[in-house]
Amino acid sequence: MPNNMMSTMMNTPLGVKTLHQFGARHFSTSRVGDYDGQQIHWRSYAEIDANSARLANALTGLGIVPGDRVGTFMWNSTQHLETYLAVPSLGAVLHTLNCRLSTEHIAYIINHAADRFLMLDARLIETFLPVLPRIPDVEHVIVSSTGNDAVALNDPRVVSFESLLGDAEETFQWPEPEENAAAGICYTSGTTGNPKGVAYSQKTTYLHALASRSVDSFAVQERDVILMLPSMFHANAWGFPYSGWMSGADMVMPGPHLQGPHLRAMIESARPTLTAMVPTLLGDLLLADEEAPLDLSCFRAIVSGGSAVPSSMIEAVRDRWDVPVIQGWGMTETSPMCVLSHPPKDLNGQTETYWRLKSGRPVPGIEVRVMDDEGNLVEQDGTTVGELQLKGAWVTGSYINEETDAFTNDGWLRTGDVGMVDAQGYVQLTDRTKDVIKSGGEWISSVDLEDVLLQHESVAEVAVVAIDDTRWQERPLAIVRSKSDCEGEALPDQLRSFLVDKVAKFWVPEYWAVVDDIPKTSVGKMDKKLLREEVAAGRLAIQKHLGFGEVND
Amino acid sequence: MPNNMMSTMMNTPLGVKTLHQFGARHFSTSRVGDYDGQQIHWRSYAEIDANSARLANALTGLGIVPGDRVGTFMWNSTQHLETYLAVPSLGAVLHTLNCRLSTEHIAYIINHAADRFLMLDARLIETFLPVLPRIPDVEHVIVSSTGNDAVALNDPRVVSFESLLGDAEETFQWPEPEENAAAGICYTSGTTGNPKGVAYSQKTTYLHALASRSVDSFAVQERDVILMLPSMFHANAWGFPYSGWMSGADMVMPGPHLQGPHLRAMIESARPTLTAMVPTLLGDLLLADEEAPLDLSCFRAIVSGGSAVPSSMIEAVRDRWDVPVIQGWGMTETSPMCVLSHPPKDLNGQTETYWRLKSGRPVPGIEVRVMDDEGNLVEQDGTTVGELQLKGAWVTGSYINEETDAFTNDGWLRTGDVGMVDAQGYVQLTDRTKDVIKSGGEWISSVDLEDVLLQHESVAEVAVVAIDDTRWQERPLAIVRSKSDCEGEALPDQLRSFLVDKVAKFWVPEYWAVVDDIPKTSVGKMDKKLLREEVAAGRLAIQKHLGFGEVND
Repeated sequence: MPNNMMSTMMNTPLGVKTLHQFGARHFSTSRVGDYDGQQIHWRSYAEIDANSARLANALTGLGIVPGDRVGTFMWNSTQHLETYLAVPSLGAVLHTLNCRLSTEHIAYIINHAADRFLMLDARLIETFLPVLPRIPDVEHVIVSSTGNDAVALNDPRVVSFESLLGDAEETFQWPEPEENAAAGICYTSGTTGNPKGVAYSQKTTYLHALASRSVDSFAVQERDVILMLPSMFHANAWGFPYSGWMSGADMVMPGPHLQGPHLRAMIESARPTLTAMVPTLLGDLLLADEEAPLDLSCFRAIVSGGSAVPSSMIEAVRDRWDVPVIQGWGMTETSPMCVLSHPPKDLNGQTETYWRLKSGRPVPGIEVRVMDDEGNLVEQDGTTVGELQLKGAWVTGSYINEETDAFTNDGWLRTGDVGMVDAQGYVQLTDRTKDVIKSGGEWISSVDLEDVLLQHESVAEVAVVAIDDTRWQERPLAIVRSKSDCEGEALPDQLRSFLVDKVAKFWVPEYWAVVDDIPKTSVGKMDKKLLREEVAAGRLAIQKHLGFGEVND
Repeated sequence: MPNNMMSTMMNTPLGVKTLHQFGARHFSTSRVGDYDGQQIHWRSYAEIDANSARLANALTGLGIVPGDRVGTFMWNSTQHLETYLAVPSLGAVLHTLNCRLSTEHIAYIINHAADRFLMLDARLIETFLPVLPRIPDVEHVIVSSTGNDAVALNDPRVVSFESLLGDAEETFQWPEPEENAAAGICYTSGTTGNPKGVAYSQKTTYLHALASRSVDSFAVQERDVILMLPSMFHANAWGFPYSGWMSGADMVMPGPHLQGPHLRAMIESARPTLTAMVPTLLGDLLLADEEAPLDLSCFRAIVSGGSAVPSSMIEAVRDRWDVPVIQGWGMTETSPMCVLSHPPKDLNGQTETYWRLKSGRPVPGIEVRVMDDEGNLVEQDGTTVGELQLKGAWVTGSYINEETDAFTNDGWLRTGDVGMVDAQGYVQLTDRTKDVIKSGGEWISSVDLEDVLLQHESVAEVAVVAIDDTRWQERPLAIVRSKSDCEGEALPDQLRSFLVDKVAKFWVPEYWAVVDDIPKTSVGKMDKKLLREEVAAGRLAIQKHLGFGEVND
């Protein structure tokens, strides 16, 4: 027998087809519902699977070949799910487009990925109209919903979903795409520079879904009802469309209806067990509950990511409904599941909330390390800060047609995020490199400051950014939206007193702005880039109080 | 951009090293215990990981190279676990040997796999002694426990584990084995013909462990305490050593101590949450509880496989301790996780036990189909019987150096098991092809008959096999071990009456044998092959009652 012995296992390629067929075969009566702003319209897995086959037949009729890119410009919907299933299963590449980006960025991404087909949600026609003339290489634009909407676009490439599917067959001979072929493409939301694209493989999409079923990750299971709040145009919505389908979970698709009253309606009607949302949205739900009771006890877990979740929020959700909040840190580049804040079995003398405040522990398959500026490993002791770097099966190793310095010589992804890792592997992000405030040679964490400020009863939202300071190079500027209108001018002084025994003295901001609204990025994070621009342009009314070192404190 | 677009994901090979390092990095304080017949000796993951590195260094010193086979002839123990971790992580192949086989078969398997190294449990020296002269190509035999035992073997190839590890370094530079390289070898237990070997790959071993963490499979998790009853020499003990380590679960290793009082001691001391066992052993636990209360409420689930679990057993475990029994059907050829009897969320008007009595539903990644004798797909309707065939990532596609007819032309594994599959994918095994009783052109299921007979209060164990019959070609022979000695002769008549309104009339056996013990195979299943031999040799006292068609019934 030769050395370097090969296994005898079957060569069955892993991919979206594997999980697509598994869900269709075993869970034909599980359901997915579209919420239309009034009610949920439920459809069975059997119907959705049949429609995915019809779509595959229709696309084949239009000449699609393996490797072709199919863009989707759609809200979360059952039609979007059908596209999620059909396109990679037939060997083509699902390219989800962030509909909150600028016209320029949307056209750039479509052209850069060389999309040949485009699926368009009729509810987004207005947004898409100015993109259409800028994407000459797209051959077919398929519009969901009624044919009239499609006609309104007045472009020969446009066809309606319904007329295209027409009498297409409800079965399709799915091929066996290669494991390492691209299955999906997503571009980063581009908070810095042009958007950059990553291409998930068939295999990593399957692996990510399989890993999402673990108890210590999202525990996605047949009994779940997933409220699909994360956008399907962004990092595959935490992969829930795939892990949910593979597991036979019911799913609720909100479409564009993400505002408080709609969330309430969907939660009260479907009693979901699992969802994920940015902390801002979770804060909205807590406020909504204070206005009129909102029962969230149906959830077995709420995942929250995008930015750090304050302890007050974690404890409020626990105290009101006994529901655990799982923080997740992930990126477009990591498919996105990466680290999750499940407490360890041995709490080691700490509260459960202490562990839930961590960014999380890696899921198996992901490795995390902390490196200093010179590229040396620092102590992984939970206190030494450096750049977080990642490696793993569902982490990208490059960007599509793009040279970057985002990868180390030994092949790790440089995240640009700063933090530490402790002996058990728990990661604590402090800040994006650019969000750290460097004050007189010391670092101030904007995230930690925000967390403490959110504990004050009058604070609804707060963003802390660096502001130039002649004495300290940089100092923190706290931009606050208050819960009531009555505090105004007096609020910063109250908050400064509130901070005094909670953070180091030199952390207490002397720069303050009280605002009516804090701008968000296309994926719902606080837009610190825009805030810094507004500060630079003098568009914010900034109060200056006596600062650190200016009195004998 | 080219068509058939490749992904941008990192190329990080999946394998035992991935999960080995993950467990060591994140769960250094989790524990594994050796039970010595009196008490459990706990050791930390940190110690076990350090020892696995020492073993890797020692083997490297002996000249091991990637692809070399390392046989293990060991009970379940922490040293066996260290070998499980070290050998595949360094790119060599772990070949677990079933210590209950005959000397001839053991030597055959070692020579057939071309093992170069052999790890020997000192407690098995007596059994292994006659094998030693028959395996001339094995270069090194490493004996666990004391050096004195090793000396007793009087063979220059023999060295003790302790002296070998000596002052070996506690760190090792693990290489990156290829995904498709063999990681482990297991031979089938050979109920027919010579044992045949399968080689699990690095990738499939990782995938199997990852899939075992799903809620809808074994839900292996950090909070588990796994009582490692399934043999580590047989299909990787349901993969628990790997899924457990990857998840940071505590584990209890029973060594050779599998008898009732030892099980009681381990359960009462460690309060395990998860285990797997053959139905026979589960029956022993139920009987033990009747003798003196035994609290099994610590378990969150008990997996049972190897043969069908009777409903009486499933209900007894539920009623006494509120613990679900998960039936599992798997084979050496399937790594072994294949189908598991989790009830669906919609019970569809049936009881939960109805679903738990099914052999199970495939775990994602496994496909099952039922074929007739001519190789055509039969209706997958839950009633049409045929041969069960399997496909999937962790299913073998061949045997090591062996031509067989075990695979179809389109690449599916022919299991030799007979059963049906329903619309939701639930599999119901009826019998091994050779265990079906063909009576006058109709099939009688020996497994179903056994299940009904076990519901009778006097029956401790029962095996039904075919016996030649001049009129009906074959008829069922029921071989019964009763719970008490007092019934003897009268028992068969009682059981015949008991059966009358529970099975078809032609199923009621007229051939009966009441025995003191039913022989078991090396993996604890009832040895029907041996029973048939004993029947043929006239060694069983068989009663003949009036049979079907012999009176006007």
